[in-house]
Amino acid sequence: MREAAILGVAMTPFGISDKTNLELFADAGLEAIVHSNLAPGDIQALFFGNCLGDFEEGQLHMAPFAHSSIGLPMSTPAVRFECACATATVAIRQAVQMVQGGIYDVILAGGTERAAAMGTPLATRTFAMASQAQYETPTGITFPGVFAMAAHLYSHRYGIPLVELKRHLAEVAVKNHFHGSKNPKAHFQKEITVEKVLNGMMVADPLQLLDCCPFSDGAAAVVIAEAGKARDLVKKPIYVAGTGQASAGPLYIQQDLTHVKAREVSVKMAYDEAHLTPGDIDVCELHDCFTMAEVLAIEGLGFYDFGRGYDAASRGETRLGGKGTVVVNPSGGLKAKGHPIGATGAAQVTEIVEQLRGEAGERQVDGAKIGLVDTLGGDLSTVCNLILRGEK
Amino acid sequence: MREAAILGVAMTPFGISDKTNLELFADAGLEAIVHSNLAPGDIQALFFGNCLGDFEEGQLHMAPFAHSSIGLPMSTPAVRFECACATATVAIRQAVQMVQGGIYDVILAGGTERAAAMGTPLATRTFAMASQAQYETPTGITFPGVFAMAAHLYSHRYGIPLVELKRHLAEVAVKNHFHGSKNPKAHFQKEITVEKVLNGMMVADPLQLLDCCPFSDGAAAVVIAEAGKARDLVKKPIYVAGTGQASAGPLYIQQDLTHVKAREVSVKMAYDEAHLTPGDIDVCELHDCFTMAEVLAIEGLGFYDFGRGYDAASRGETRLGGKGTVVVNPSGGLKAKGHPIGATGAAQVTEIVEQLRGEAGERQVDGAKIGLVDTLGGDLSTVCNLILRGEK
Repeated sequence: MREAAILGVAMTPFGISDKTNLELFADAGLEAIVHSNLAPGDIQALFFGNCLGDFEEGQLHMAPFAHSSIGLPMSTPAVRFECACATATVAIRQAVQMVQGGIYDVILAGGTERAAAMGTPLATRTFAMASQAQYETPTGITFPGVFAMAAHLYSHRYGIPLVELKRHLAEVAVKNHFHGSKNPKAHFQKEITVEKVLNGMMVADPLQLLDCCPFSDGAAAVVIAEAGKARDLVKKPIYVAGTGQASAGPLYIQQDLTHVKAREVSVKMAYDEAHLTPGDIDVCELHDCFTMAEVLAIEGLGFYDFGRGYDAASRGETRLGGKGTVVVNPSGGLKAKGHPIGATGAAQVTEIVEQLRGEAGERQVDGAKIGLVDTLGGDLSTVCNLILRGEK
Repeated sequence: MREAAILGVAMTPFGISDKTNLELFADAGLEAIVHSNLAPGDIQALFFGNCLGDFEEGQLHMAPFAHSSIGLPMSTPAVRFECACATATVAIRQAVQMVQGGIYDVILAGGTERAAAMGTPLATRTFAMASQAQYETPTGITFPGVFAMAAHLYSHRYGIPLVELKRHLAEVAVKNHFHGSKNPKAHFQKEITVEKVLNGMMVADPLQLLDCCPFSDGAAAVVIAEAGKARDLVKKPIYVAGTGQASAGPLYIQQDLTHVKAREVSVKMAYDEAHLTPGDIDVCELHDCFTMAEVLAIEGLGFYDFGRGYDAASRGETRLGGKGTVVVNPSGGLKAKGHPIGATGAAQVTEIVEQLRGEAGERQVDGAKIGLVDTLGGDLSTVCNLILRGEK
């Protein structure tokens, strides 16, 4: 099996945009190609992510149009992927596998979404279609509800009073907004306080407004190539040490909202392939669509025992410059950087690559050598992970 | 590079169904697994195709639910692909590449769609979202219109009076309905006459009702494995000799509706990889979404010179038992077998595999050794091809 590496990475500013999905993706895709010291004609395949272009813009079949907006050659196939919020991570992992298997030498992968353009109420309803439509959607469930239920169950199971858990969850939001304040491309670049979180509008008890990530517009893209070729092209290629993806069914056949089994299976694949353990990870971009989701993720990824991750942010362990072994979501995460659904995984990879190159500016994690990407799709039914590292 | 082969194949009856997409896909997927002498636990990845589950059933993120409805293991990733009508063909080609590259040994690939359940007027409008939404959709273009324009241009360019061309196009419909009459899973199993076609309702001049394929409900699935493993499991593995995929941009940057350039690029890739030429193909399932589309395809695939394919059906050359070198759409094609968008490519592969195994019953093409699959996505912007063969 060949080794895969990441060359150029790019993301548009996340937030509310007047641009179309195709314009956003062209901005990110062309910048990633330029940063790779390549031209569009060098790209051998486009693995393109988007979730709801049909609802957002009446645009199905977006891949070949993204392809032509970047000026890729006709012989370069354009393939659209959709795995809910994990869409771009899955597209990137497939690109990594194709490069590892010798099918292509250079692939552009990423995604775009105009989730903010829809407005939050409509976006919440349409993205709720990522739940199982026959049995779950009719109950009225939406994603804030899923993670609110998880918070209740977590509180009950581990004997942490809800009022106490809410305060610790607020600390996750405060940390990620602090990180976002250092990210000029973040949707939210203002720091917040625990009091502000706890005074927010209730969304799905116990989750309040600032426990929830925003819907954002934005795109991100990365170029993946065979490692030898990568070394010829860029000064600091970032290597793919391990990947994983796992799939669980709908919530009603999953046993426990507080244990995301697909994540445990997926990240184990990635750790095993990389011959690494959670203690080796210096920096992690993980799926904090809600503050509660970050708690579930730091436990599921093995950074904390189950039931022990809820106060990691309060203790300052997952913060930039903090006392822990891993900095979590230095970009601001979905919570503050923003969440353009089909682009999110590629933006996570972009952040980790910049961190491992030492080019993350004010957000730089000192001495970051190994990074982990974690993306959750739907109601805990898809998880995809990537472990990246700099030169050995 | 390893060799990939196809083991079990299966399709549901195409037509109008009361089943959900997940139920349809489970029917086809489980049957394909059983025909491969495998169990769900043996499947290492699910490459799943669907176009508009969100509009059809309020179901985004269908892949992990398809995965659980078949009982696949959590460590088997489920990935959704969408490339308009070429969705399942692209999913299958990606599976072939992953097997060739040594990433997986056994993959289930296919697709499902409930296009008929929507009703034709709504389906025509929603699937028109596969045109470019910013510049083309506002003109009111739909797919019948695209192929009607191609017919006018073809008539003009090659000096064939429209009234004469219409009669030859009707012969394409008559042929494919004749084939469909021999296919117990076809949406339409009745023979029709040229007069019936010419007396039909006008859809988009010069295309009348029976020049157009139906929207159908249905699913199809195939198991792809490394060739050595395939030989251990089934008596007649069918080998993947060559594949191709190419992407053109929106219609307004394509130069000529009568020359589908993406097809020419894609099928050349497949012929070159297989070391074969059009004259080697015995049987072909191609993208006859409209009668005119079959004419464009038999020319673009190299069976006929440009401007010379329009009367192939009239001359009886592409018919079962006909005088030509290749039988076109023995299944009935999209025209009579039906067109459940995201399933179509997998159904085309199913037909070719059954033909090459000599198991196509009344539809059997005598001595078929090499078969070609051709699927077009959107307004000529995605084309994907597969060349299959039996034991050498």
